[in-house]
Amino acid sequence: MIGYLAATLTTASFLPQAILTIKTKDTESLSLGMYSMFTLGVFCWLIYGFYLADKAIIFANAITLVLAASILFFKIYNVLFKNG
Amino acid sequence: MIGYLAATLTTASFLPQAILTIKTKDTESLSLGMYSMFTLGVFCWLIYGFYLADKAIIFANAITLVLAASILFFKIYNVLFKNG
Repeated sequence: MIGYLAATLTTASFLPQAILTIKTKDTESLSLGMYSMFTLGVFCWLIYGFYLADKAIIFANAITLVLAASILFFKIYNVLFKNG
Repeated sequence: MIGYLAATLTTASFLPQAILTIKTKDTESLSLGMYSMFTLGVFCWLIYGFYLADKAIIFANAITLVLAASILFFKIYNVLFKNG
């Protein structure tokens, strides 16, 4: 029960961040290092979920991957073309 | 193996973000909703770890909690006293 709550909160938390980033396109105070490592980490979690054939791990990390990758995309775009 | 790599990456990723936030004190593009939900979620993960008596879950989430809570602290401070 507390495990499901924990998983829901940590997964869903990236939704308001992704919405804010897509809306404002501002990524200046976001860390490129964080989003690079985090996106790669979530991708590893997804592979691990497939390996365990655990639907909860696959589901939670598939959602987080889309959100984290969107944020990372804007960060990289801004670093390359807008100086941050 | 891929599970440990995943856990290390997603946990460690908050370190560069915490360093950036503490150094610059800039939190304008960070989402308050994200860090509120995420910090609460990590706290739930920590309780879940104690419930399962799983040292890996306890260890990873104790570190992440300190990092996420530091970032959240700066965000709340800036929202209250510096308009974002």
